[in-house]
Amino acid sequence: MLALAAAPLGIRTLAVDASADACAGQVAELLIAGWSDEAALADFARRVDAVTFDFENVPAATAERLAGQVAVHPNPQALAVAQDRLAEKTLFRESGLDTPGFAAVDTRDDLVAAVERIGLPAILKTRRLGYDGKGQFRLKTAADIDAAWAALGEAAAKHGLILEAFVPFDRELSVVAVRGRDGEFRTWPLTRNWHVDGVLSLSLAPAPGTSDALEQAAVAQAKAIAERLGYVGVFALELFVRGGELLGNEMAPRVHNSGHWTIEGAHTSQFENHIRAVLGLPLGDTGARGASAMLNWIGEMPDPAPVLSVADGHWHDYGKEARPGRKVGHATICASDAGSLRAKLVEVGSGLGREAQVAPAIEVLG
Amino acid sequence: MLALAAAPLGIRTLAVDASADACAGQVAELLIAGWSDEAALADFARRVDAVTFDFENVPAATAERLAGQVAVHPNPQALAVAQDRLAEKTLFRESGLDTPGFAAVDTRDDLVAAVERIGLPAILKTRRLGYDGKGQFRLKTAADIDAAWAALGEAAAKHGLILEAFVPFDRELSVVAVRGRDGEFRTWPLTRNWHVDGVLSLSLAPAPGTSDALEQAAVAQAKAIAERLGYVGVFALELFVRGGELLGNEMAPRVHNSGHWTIEGAHTSQFENHIRAVLGLPLGDTGARGASAMLNWIGEMPDPAPVLSVADGHWHDYGKEARPGRKVGHATICASDAGSLRAKLVEVGSGLGREAQVAPAIEVLG
Ligand SMILES: Nc1ncnc2c1ncn2[C@@H]1O[C@H](COP(=O)(O)OP(=O)(O)O)[C@@H](O)[C@H]1O
Ligand SMILES: Nc1ncnc2c1ncn2[C@@H]1O[C@H](COP(=O)(O)OP(=O)(O)O)[C@@H](O)[C@H]1O
Ligand SMILES: [Mg+2]
Ligand SMILES: [Mg+2]
Repeated sequence: MLALAAAPLGIRTLAVDASADACAGQVAELLIAGWSDEAALADFARRVDAVTFDFENVPAATAERLAGQVAVHPNPQALAVAQDRLAEKTLFRESGLDTPGFAAVDTRDDLVAAVERIGLPAILKTRRLGYDGKGQFRLKTAADIDAAWAALGEAAAKHGLILEAFVPFDRELSVVAVRGRDGEFRTWPLTRNWHVDGVLSLSLAPAPGTSDALEQAAVAQAKAIAERLGYVGVFALELFVRGGELLGNEMAPRVHNSGHWTIEGAHTSQFENHIRAVLGLPLGDTGARGASAMLNWIGEMPDPAPVLSVADGHWHDYGKEARPGRKVGHATICASDAGSLRAKLVEVGSGLGREAQVAPAIEVLG
Repeated sequence: MLALAAAPLGIRTLAVDASADACAGQVAELLIAGWSDEAALADFARRVDAVTFDFENVPAATAERLAGQVAVHPNPQALAVAQDRLAEKTLFRESGLDTPGFAAVDTRDDLVAAVERIGLPAILKTRRLGYDGKGQFRLKTAADIDAAWAALGEAAAKHGLILEAFVPFDRELSVVAVRGRDGEFRTWPLTRNWHVDGVLSLSLAPAPGTSDALEQAAVAQAKAIAERLGYVGVFALELFVRGGELLGNEMAPRVHNSGHWTIEGAHTSQFENHIRAVLGLPLGDTGARGASAMLNWIGEMPDPAPVLSVADGHWHDYGKEARPGRKVGHATICASDAGSLRAKLVEVGSGLGREAQVAPAIEVLG
């Protein structure tokens, strides 16, 4: 989607991926190389004017090495912080954003002590390399400590772990934001998100029923964090809302799944603005065109007809092989207002036999 | 732009072009082959599920041959009619759409007789292979006959010529339309177009100040023509308006420059709907999102900053080498209403030092 947004701007994309069937290769030149293939990456750096990422788990050391040769945005330090749930949450607190209680866990003893301190329920997560709910274990009672350690103890040595208090949140929001090379900062309207098994299932934007005060607070937090990191490009700040208070969950240093609706639902998409930011071009208008809902397709693509048949329904098939739990595509349904969006979602949900997936949006838009 | 629209639908594009730097190659696989390279085209046909064109001058015989192997839309007969200004204008008249007076010209004597019959001023055009005002000669007085024949006499033998009465039109409009495999027919709002030296310079959509009756008449003509041709896909019907009457100028059997504004200015772009139509998918909503203006970049790309700096300003750089008279890109400026579009065009025009290019739109939107 970045390459598709870059093309009209006259930007040629050279994608690097270890896998020959990386989906960027459908619309851009693909260089097949691993993150530690120094020779290939040096070659790559020589061929491009700027480097960016659509995946936060590029090793910070790789980003650092590239930055010695060519402009890299976001900067490798920002990437390093956002890669590490401990550094990230520490940064959130330093910049005034509250978080769920958390503690670093390197050993089984650490885990026992952390459960003591944080309380239960809690979630044990790998500090690095987790995404889409992977590398997480939910603990309900102290009896779950053994199972949690069995699942993630091995990862502790490699990536470190973090125990987080489980937050019985009222809702999840994200701020999708962009910061230019000149420090200009813009955000799209807040997005409300629903996850199933830790994986994003549904987003609504602008997030219905969000007060101006809450929106301003969320945007101010995102701005403060971006400025601390000297961040350039698009990022998402994932937030929990509990009793009107914001808690920082994590920050994605890249275009984000909860911003996919911006392709059709905003005047400028997150993908285009990321490219604009990284290349030092003026940022585009982040206003919404109306109300949008994004439905993720996990595992396999459904029949496109019900989405294509609804007015202003848009289809995104990433051309990935079907695989359980894999994000293989999404759909965005746009409408002029909440009422019409609701009606379209009812239609799409029943057309697809996916009433459960659209249900939370229908309830909120009701 | 077709390949960019196809990708999100999960459609892989294989482009055929004789030139290795054809711009489709930036975002799709490119097969380098000429239109008469039968072996390469047979190979191509074996590799794809459906064939379409973004250029009307693909030889109808080539289309015909491909259609023996694979689904080809629009059908080769429709392509053949639209390739020939004589056949096209004859079809217009048969289906009830008036045209400028015209006469076939194969010899210098024909030309003299045609000038006699049609009157002056008139335009001599090649029947085939003309585009962007190429292959045309304007005659003001009988003294121009010599120069006209010197310019186009040679083409007469190869492609045939047509003499058309020069129409002192009030304005030019186009109907950009799409027809599905199942016969479903949709049009985008009428577009008003301004040409400079026979090349599209500026489009405005929805065409301001167009009566419902005129719009309905134009749409009905487009529909009648599409049905006669059994047309599948997007096409544009170029019209002159004179004293409230419609005259058919030509039909472009493909996505059309006057429909480029639909990428950002409509719920579904002409490119996406062409792909949907050709593949038998449901057609998307052709409604406008607001008011849009499209500015063509001819010869070379201007500085993008003034367009990127205006809210809802969008840039399209085709990645083509600069060359006098060549369409190398365009910009689309979108706004919620005519007044705001006008203000943006004033800003963009002065930012680019292209006041003259935007002037007609500013006047009409005033
Ligand atoms: N501390 C927590 N309390 C409650 N729910 C959580 C917590 N951490 C994660 N979740 C749920 O799991 C989802 C995915 O977890 P997250 O930490 O964002 O990992 P990922 O990197 O996979 O997105 C969250 O969006 C949220 O729904
Ligand atoms: N008969 C005509 N009378 C007046 N203007 C004409 C006539 N034919 C062409 N033009 C002008 O020249 C432009 C380009 O001519 P057209 O026949 O559409 O050729 P092309 O295939 O290059 O688009 C038209 O859009 C119109 O502005
Ligand atoms: Mg997350
Ligand atoms: Mg024309």
